[in-house]
Amino acid sequence: MTTAVADFGLIGLAVMGQNLILNINDHGFKVCAYNRTVAKVDNFLANEAKGTEIVGAHSIEEFVAKLKRPRKIMLLVKAGSAVDAFIETLLPHLEEGDIVIDGGNSHYPDTQRRYEYLTSKKILFVGCGVSGGEEGARYGPSLMPGGNPEAWPHLKPIFQAIAAKAPDGAPCCDWVGEGGAGHFVKMVHNGIEYGDMQLITEVYQLLRDGLGLSDDEQGDIFEKWNKGVLDSFLIEITTDILRFKDTDGQPLVEKIRDAAGQKGTGKWTAISALDYGMPVTLIGEAVFARCLSAIKDERVRASKILAGPAHGAFTGDKAQLIKDLEQAMYASKIIASAQYKWNLNYGSIALMWRGGCIIRSAFLGDIKHAFDTNANLENLLFDPFFQEATAAAQSGWRNTIASAVVMGIPVPALGTALSFYDGYRTARLPANLLQAQRDYFGAHTYELDGQPGKWIHTNWTWPRSAPFSNFNSQTTLLP
Amino acid sequence: MTTAVADFGLIGLAVMGQNLILNINDHGFKVCAYNRTVAKVDNFLANEAKGTEIVGAHSIEEFVAKLKRPRKIMLLVKAGSAVDAFIETLLPHLEEGDIVIDGGNSHYPDTQRRYEYLTSKKILFVGCGVSGGEEGARYGPSLMPGGNPEAWPHLKPIFQAIAAKAPDGAPCCDWVGEGGAGHFVKMVHNGIEYGDMQLITEVYQLLRDGLGLSDDEQGDIFEKWNKGVLDSFLIEITTDILRFKDTDGQPLVEKIRDAAGQKGTGKWTAISALDYGMPVTLIGEAVFARCLSAIKDERVRASKILAGPAHGAFTGDKAQLIKDLEQAMYASKIIASAQYKWNLNYGSIALMWRGGCIIRSAFLGDIKHAFDTNANLENLLFDPFFQEATAAAQSGWRNTIASAVVMGIPVPALGTALSFYDGYRTARLPANLLQAQRDYFGAHTYELDGQPGKWIHTNWTWPRSAPFSNFNSQTTLLP
Repeated sequence: MTTAVADFGLIGLAVMGQNLILNINDHGFKVCAYNRTVAKVDNFLANEAKGTEIVGAHSIEEFVAKLKRPRKIMLLVKAGSAVDAFIETLLPHLEEGDIVIDGGNSHYPDTQRRYEYLTSKKILFVGCGVSGGEEGARYGPSLMPGGNPEAWPHLKPIFQAIAAKAPDGAPCCDWVGEGGAGHFVKMVHNGIEYGDMQLITEVYQLLRDGLGLSDDEQGDIFEKWNKGVLDSFLIEITTDILRFKDTDGQPLVEKIRDAAGQKGTGKWTAISALDYGMPVTLIGEAVFARCLSAIKDERVRASKILAGPAHGAFTGDKAQLIKDLEQAMYASKIIASAQYKWNLNYGSIALMWRGGCIIRSAFLGDIKHAFDTNANLENLLFDPFFQEATAAAQSGWRNTIASAVVMGIPVPALGTALSFYDGYRTARLPANLLQAQRDYFGAHTYELDGQPGKWIHTNWTWPRSAPFSNFNSQTTLLP
Repeated sequence: MTTAVADFGLIGLAVMGQNLILNINDHGFKVCAYNRTVAKVDNFLANEAKGTEIVGAHSIEEFVAKLKRPRKIMLLVKAGSAVDAFIETLLPHLEEGDIVIDGGNSHYPDTQRRYEYLTSKKILFVGCGVSGGEEGARYGPSLMPGGNPEAWPHLKPIFQAIAAKAPDGAPCCDWVGEGGAGHFVKMVHNGIEYGDMQLITEVYQLLRDGLGLSDDEQGDIFEKWNKGVLDSFLIEITTDILRFKDTDGQPLVEKIRDAAGQKGTGKWTAISALDYGMPVTLIGEAVFARCLSAIKDERVRASKILAGPAHGAFTGDKAQLIKDLEQAMYASKIIASAQYKWNLNYGSIALMWRGGCIIRSAFLGDIKHAFDTNANLENLLFDPFFQEATAAAQSGWRNTIASAVVMGIPVPALGTALSFYDGYRTARLPANLLQAQRDYFGAHTYELDGQPGKWIHTNWTWPRSAPFSNFNSQTTLLP
């Protein structure tokens, strides 16, 4: 009979899975590895896992038998039906109180559904966001677990051990909440990642096509920025990328096709934002910018016939514009974070994102600090630090957008960030006209200033139309 | 026994329903009216319908019995469960080949589902978009019917008779397609409506807060614009609204609370665009702008602490900026239409929208013409007319955005339109950097220019990291 020897089981031996196993092993936990294509198990044990405590299994039965109870099983398989299929395969072999963790990029409503299903089977289900890519998985990811809280005490020692550590030593992993909360937080993380990446590419295009700088010159700028307020993983890797030479000595990035891929999590964030009525415009623009980049051939044809300023036409102060770009990117990053308001414990989540993950940055420490100072902060922009930061960025931010517009370089994310800021700080927006239009053509009614809740309809065609009465045109429809 | 006397039956006697019945009656068809609250039927017959051929019914049995076969029954009830409930109530009384039309604002997947369900019951189901508001319903709406094509020959004489007529006399109604197509086209219509309205409000705010013009001065400007390329229903009603005085002689629009409502169709369009991977940024920004306007109290608080240029700070050539605004709005309208590509017969749909509906405009005639000239037009911007129009708008468009940015007035829709245009006409976007970033942190692989389909992964940390080989770092993952 097989002895239960392993503290943790992991299914799915792609690079992420292998690296997580090696990471857990490094921290003194015994892991059992399993993969549907069983040869991968043997291959992993004979190579990457050689000389470690890691064990393998050649069947689900063997896998489950090798795990100590309550069993802790992580799935790292393709999001979607594969997760459901593995859950069904596992179920007959599990016992009450066993823990199943989905570490893939599942959509949070799916996680919620699986949580409810497995709760009815007395299995503790956890959906865990994992960020940091392959390197994070191996040496310290950011982990965002949520689901059945009874699972957390069993997982906490392992997860907090393997997670990345923030500069102050705190693990980049904490319990996020019930149901689909873990994957929800991961989705928001990816939405911010989309926004950050889009902002960087826009600045890159302004440096490249607007100022005509070489990749090495740009690398120097990004390296410098990485020592200031923009200090972050994405700025750091951008520096590496800009300096990376192909075998012919030319910058490799310039040979890459400018058609962006996406796996759907950014899209989910934008859709959720629309569903919640939350104006998260930066992620929206970032997703749409990837869509636009993808129709490369159509753009090439369009570029031959559509008018616009010639690139490289910038005749102003280059050094100043480079300084302005830093301010514009920083202010836009603040807006990207300020746009989210998911009733999450944002301070503790920012803490979790300070290490390991793609969006890790010095900036997140400031967010944490803002919520530490005021747990009920209405919006990040109300925090004195961020209020002053956006105030200081004003002229650089506005000059960047104005320059881009004149040069004909698209800045959808930088631009929408400024529009959001200007809209957010506007006490009186033009939506009064919009309400009047809706009432004019659809009798949708409107409220007067200072009288919210009293809905009024007006016959707006007075005095033009004869058939309607000229008087008492303003009538209250609803009390 | 009740005699089948009526050509058409309509359920739901709110203003839209009443007006459609009166419209159908005007064109020589006998209509039977029914409402769940039966008193409304008597009230309608005794008042609005007095002296007409319209008949009423006090029960579903009586209603169905009064309709000639195949019965043509339109539901004009609240979108959602009410539609399903009425379908279930009707079903036991209907016979094979009877026609049920949903004229409400249903979401197209619901219409598709009802179409499939009723097809299985041998009932011909039609989802029909209706635009034009109360006045359109009464005197000529734009109608967008889709569903079971066997229903169309029976509906065509009635629908095309009551529909609005374009300036050339063509009815603003034609068969749109199978299943949920009618409500899909209505959704796209509403998306464009959202974009148009947002553009107008942004221009209004620039005139109001940027140039400090009075409502009457603005009314004159909109009236003038309505005689040029912007000639449209929404510009026309904006003129009326700006000139409309409250009982105290002050412009009523300025007393309306600037918190926009929405009923969900714009949101649906944006979500569908995200799902289809289509960069429809204008509708996205328009929906988000309404969300931002809705958090009025938060904005008022933010306005007191967030920095920005003082309004009314425009010191340039006012007359020139007003001209520029017209160009900016026109070019942005072109972009709003160019962003849609739903594999629809856009030319014939534009034809349908030339009269009756909220987005009716001279402009739609030019779209129709573009697709008449080239049925396979890749994008509206490839049409010589629109290519020249956007070329001519360049300087006004760019000057508008730059001025707004400097003045601190939000222009999310005007701005995103220009960013889309500049992105669309850019042969080489910065997405090559984005692909490199995704490959760096997630091994997502990338394509080289000129080698689409060959997916490559690079170890980007060379030459910084010792553990990795300095050579052959560029490896092909997928053939």
